[in-house]
Amino acid sequence: MLAQEHAPIEALTIGTEMHDLLSELYPICRSITGYGVRQTLEILQQHIPVEVRSIPSGTIVFDWEVPKEWNITDAYIKKMNGEKVIDFSTSNLHVLSYSTPIHAWLKISELREHLYTLPEHPDWIPYRTSYYKKDWGFCVSYNQFLSLTDDVYEVCINSTLEEGHLNYGELFIKGETPAEVLITTHICHPSLCNDNLSGISVVTFLAIELGKKKQRYSYRFLFIPGTIGAITWLTLNEAATQNIKHGLVTVLLGDEGNFTYKKSRQGNAEIDEIVDEALKSRCKEYKIIDYSPYGYDERQFCSPGFNLPVGCLSRTPYNQYPEYHTSADNLDFVKAESLEESFEMLLLIVSMLEKNRKYVNTNPKCEPNLGKRGLYNLTGNDKSTHDFQLATLWVLSLSDGTHSLLQISKKSKITFNTICKAASQLMKSGLLIDLQSN
Amino acid sequence: MLAQEHAPIEALTIGTEMHDLLSELYPICRSITGYGVRQTLEILQQHIPVEVRSIPSGTIVFDWEVPKEWNITDAYIKKMNGEKVIDFSTSNLHVLSYSTPIHAWLKISELREHLYTLPEHPDWIPYRTSYYKKDWGFCVSYNQFLSLTDDVYEVCINSTLEEGHLNYGELFIKGETPAEVLITTHICHPSLCNDNLSGISVVTFLAIELGKKKQRYSYRFLFIPGTIGAITWLTLNEAATQNIKHGLVTVLLGDEGNFTYKKSRQGNAEIDEIVDEALKSRCKEYKIIDYSPYGYDERQFCSPGFNLPVGCLSRTPYNQYPEYHTSADNLDFVKAESLEESFEMLLLIVSMLEKNRKYVNTNPKCEPNLGKRGLYNLTGNDKSTHDFQLATLWVLSLSDGTHSLLQISKKSKITFNTICKAASQLMKSGLLIDLQSN
Amino acid sequence: MLAQEHAPIEALTIGTEMHDLLSELYPICRSITGYGVRQTLEILQQHIPVEVRSIPSGTIVFDWEVPKEWNITDAYIKKMNGEKVIDFSTSNLHVLSYSTPIHAWLKISELREHLYTLPEHPDWIPYRTSYYKKDWGFCVSYNQFLSLTDDVYEVCINSTLEEGHLNYGELFIKGETPAEVLITTHICHPSLCNDNLSGISVVTFLAIELGKKKQRYSYRFLFIPGTIGAITWLTLNEAATQNIKHGLVTVLLGDEGNFTYKKSRQGNAEIDEIVDEALKSRCKEYKIIDYSPYGYDERQFCSPGFNLPVGCLSRTPYNQYPEYHTSADNLDFVKAESLEESFEMLLLIVSMLEKNRKYVNTNPKCEPNLGKRGLYNLTGNDKSTHDFQLATLWVLSLSDGTHSLLQISKKSKITFNTICKAASQLMKSGLLIDLQSN
Repeated sequence: MLAQEHAPIEALTIGTEMHDLLSELYPICRSITGYGVRQTLEILQQHIPVEVRSIPSGTIVFDWEVPKEWNITDAYIKKMNGEKVIDFSTSNLHVLSYSTPIHAWLKISELREHLYTLPEHPDWIPYRTSYYKKDWGFCVSYNQFLSLTDDVYEVCINSTLEEGHLNYGELFIKGETPAEVLITTHICHPSLCNDNLSGISVVTFLAIELGKKKQRYSYRFLFIPGTIGAITWLTLNEAATQNIKHGLVTVLLGDEGNFTYKKSRQGNAEIDEIVDEALKSRCKEYKIIDYSPYGYDERQFCSPGFNLPVGCLSRTPYNQYPEYHTSADNLDFVKAESLEESFEMLLLIVSMLEKNRKYVNTNPKCEPNLGKRGLYNLTGNDKSTHDFQLATLWVLSLSDGTHSLLQISKKSKITFNTICKAASQLMKSGLLIDLQSN
Repeated sequence: MLAQEHAPIEALTIGTEMHDLLSELYPICRSITGYGVRQTLEILQQHIPVEVRSIPSGTIVFDWEVPKEWNITDAYIKKMNGEKVIDFSTSNLHVLSYSTPIHAWLKISELREHLYTLPEHPDWIPYRTSYYKKDWGFCVSYNQFLSLTDDVYEVCINSTLEEGHLNYGELFIKGETPAEVLITTHICHPSLCNDNLSGISVVTFLAIELGKKKQRYSYRFLFIPGTIGAITWLTLNEAATQNIKHGLVTVLLGDEGNFTYKKSRQGNAEIDEIVDEALKSRCKEYKIIDYSPYGYDERQFCSPGFNLPVGCLSRTPYNQYPEYHTSADNLDFVKAESLEESFEMLLLIVSMLEKNRKYVNTNPKCEPNLGKRGLYNLTGNDKSTHDFQLATLWVLSLSDGTHSLLQISKKSKITFNTICKAASQLMKSGLLIDLQSN
Repeated sequence: MLAQEHAPIEALTIGTEMHDLLSELYPICRSITGYGVRQTLEILQQHIPVEVRSIPSGTIVFDWEVPKEWNITDAYIKKMNGEKVIDFSTSNLHVLSYSTPIHAWLKISELREHLYTLPEHPDWIPYRTSYYKKDWGFCVSYNQFLSLTDDVYEVCINSTLEEGHLNYGELFIKGETPAEVLITTHICHPSLCNDNLSGISVVTFLAIELGKKKQRYSYRFLFIPGTIGAITWLTLNEAATQNIKHGLVTVLLGDEGNFTYKKSRQGNAEIDEIVDEALKSRCKEYKIIDYSPYGYDERQFCSPGFNLPVGCLSRTPYNQYPEYHTSADNLDFVKAESLEESFEMLLLIVSMLEKNRKYVNTNPKCEPNLGKRGLYNLTGNDKSTHDFQLATLWVLSLSDGTHSLLQISKKSKITFNTICKAASQLMKSGLLIDLQSN
């Protein structure tokens, strides 16, 4: 049959594309510094024009110092007969991140002091780091641990800890106004998929999407090593933070759990209202939690000296799923559908931010004559016409420069979309102006 | 028997008097302009010294224009044999208000496009208007509609739409202070009793009552055509609106339903607190609803450029009873008892507004010595003495210029009346002064 | 056995010591003036360096006047045969406090007009006063009242009402700052134990305790006659009241009921938050009630001209236990355990006030590097280590000069103690400063 011959190639869903990018990034051994970060950013540059910043080791960033750059080529534990029983090349999780180099023959009792395991999941390798305390170690499955029964092992970590750079990626998409939306994700984790290749992948595709047409807001995307990256960026861009009107730290976006939004330290910022409404409009179940000073880089953006309106969007929060920070956070754990849903949620949030303005009624004394402008039709029996008409009246009534469209939507119990449409029509008729644009 | 001969004529209750006035006004064909409005105001002038304002057609009032004056002398639909099947003289609801004149012979199919019916109540005539779009039409009962089976009918509307005036009634009763209470009702509906002859009648009798003795507040009564009347008055009196401290739009006061109060746009104005308390003190059931920008003339008074503290008091709200805007809203639908109850409620609201002051304790440091002024008696077992004493202490404690007596009543959980009496006694003793009067 | 020979004398609990002091004070006939007050203060001087103030009768104190001094040596009702049926020396409650002198033979009908009884508790003598109205009277048990069946009785009250002084005790313990905590109790009741020997006793021991080491706050203790004493003190110390940052009126602290705290008129003062938290942390059941202008001397301290942050701590409130203001409020009614518990509660409140500061994070931009200061340890499995670490982050996050440690405790849901310890460690490391001390 002819039709079959021409059957179109099934288009890749964006979820699949994101999962593909994530798969490409998965094998790389990332840490807070080093080749892995640069290699990751280079791959992102094939998709978006992200700029790679390089900050030398030793640079003072607020109360901190950019650490030495860590790189690793190989690591293993060998039996005396030369058999590798633990091999970095099979999983970069095997090495405690930022391990100092070592090559030695150790008694099993000495070795054990440097082994990390997860007895409750005997096949999984845990993920551990020691950025700021000089140490070395191996993370092994509990079963591997149990099999280490010889008296002596050869231990080798071929790593370097030298003057170098901290790198991060920055992409600024200029909008109609200098007011910025900040969207960040961390890039310092090795072969872990949900944490945080999911974030890297979703944010990359969000940047692609927002680059397609001019937005009202400017968008700043940061792909940064956790904590030290955010601290470094804030040090170098302190003055520029005044442009940040809204922000989101995005993490853990690929698992199948419900969305969780952690509010900004301000607690009632516009981004907090918007995400709440976006989740409510799309999700049967989701969670909004109050700010706390433990978590991801919102800790830095919301520190009291900045107190930026930055929340954190994830699906299941850290530490609340067993695969967290283990080798089980792998390519299977992250679903294309979840990535796509997260991407759509971020797009919705962005579109709501874009639309959520505070207008001013240019005819505030008495109602304007809507009839003469063809804007009055309450006689229709049609519910959507009726709602639209009421929306028009609500927007006129509350557009005194203090109510955002989302707040008007909540007060009127009319959907945000209908309120936005009514506002748009009123803008066209000259009955509303947008003071923020002037 | 002599006694019987001199049996006094049973005094008319005020409810009956209000119903009588309403009956007198019922036959008049009112609209937003025209003879009917003037005739209505002339009848009110037999009761109260209301002044009749005349604003020429074409006057620009904010975003609107005073429309041409509409008058009508006759209208009918006749069979070709001359039999009148629809006759304006039997009900002025039969004509679409502001119908343009017509005299023509129409095919039934053409005529039907100009007929309005209410199939769910086949004996009732609906009430319809077309103020701002040139059109003509007849409102007929559904049974009448069904009986129109001839092919052709003679249609006649003997109306004029000419340069003239918009009229409204205004009555200002000067009080001790220039601070005003605004009380409005609309006067633009033809033979409909609850909407809004009930309002006209109750407000007229309220004005009579408030004219009997000097009040603290000045009272401004407006008898105005809906929407265009309020817009016109606000245009002409913009500066004077700064004196309006409280206001009520009063409508639909004659049915047997419970009271409904729609709060001002401010939402927490003193009038909102007062009406809430007044309803709570008298009614088992009542409803308080939030402001919305659809309804009666509160839409104009509360438009964001004015944002006056004006709420709307009704019984069953518009559209929530089947008789609304139909010929069934007639003299039977409105009850003398309901009118009287509405009148009493308005009197209560007024008396609470009059009494609700913010005083200042002249002896704010430590309690004053009430005993030496004969004001201390907490030993009595009498509950009312005890309450009165506590009321005295509460008034002294909270009279710091920021709490009104109603707020003191709520905080102390002592009735407003008892709090007012305690305040009155403290005024006499010099322990309170009223800063607002100075 | 040797051990038994040396068995230590069982140490007096502080509750027993307080009960002993109370027992010593019990027989004294106190009123708002007179020997009894002075004698009471002299006994307190054996424990604490309280200064005795003397204000002459006739001194004008705000709206009041210091009354004449009342003293009494004897009083009785005798049968004509000389038998004493009511005898002041058996209970000083028998005489209406401030009774004018009388020696007369009265008919039983005349006498009865001056007798006060409690029919619902026929063995108890009620307590009554007539400070500001010249009168005389006897308070007798209802059974005594019933036994007065003779026709005539000899009545004698050997009292004086003369120019003299009003006395009160004042003890100021200077702290590191001039900011004061005011703690008052009344001393005008005769042989009543809970009301208010319990307060006198507990406050005395609290003063002993706070005198042992320098506190941050200064503490001012007042032992004053109710109402007139507080008014007098406020008149003489009006300017000094600006130093009062927190205050407690303490009364009825010896019964077995639960604690009751009546909030200050401000309603959200720091003392209100602190007492709420202190009660919550120690008591299964307790009550917090809103301010009302009836009660103890908080009426004066919270009068609108002062509006000081002064609450009232008691156990069962006045009038809510049958023994209140009767001879049944005796040494048995007040328990050493209750006194001790009240004392401990006041100590807790004081210690929380002392610790509850508003600090400022000296490194507010991004998180400080806790690791390099040895302050970071979130890897421990130990819950208390973990809580302490989180407490450190919370204190840093919210120490922007607007949040007290108690408010941080509430927001973080971490105990006040842990928050205080974290703040203390941060102070040592220089990451917090206390702006209030500068």
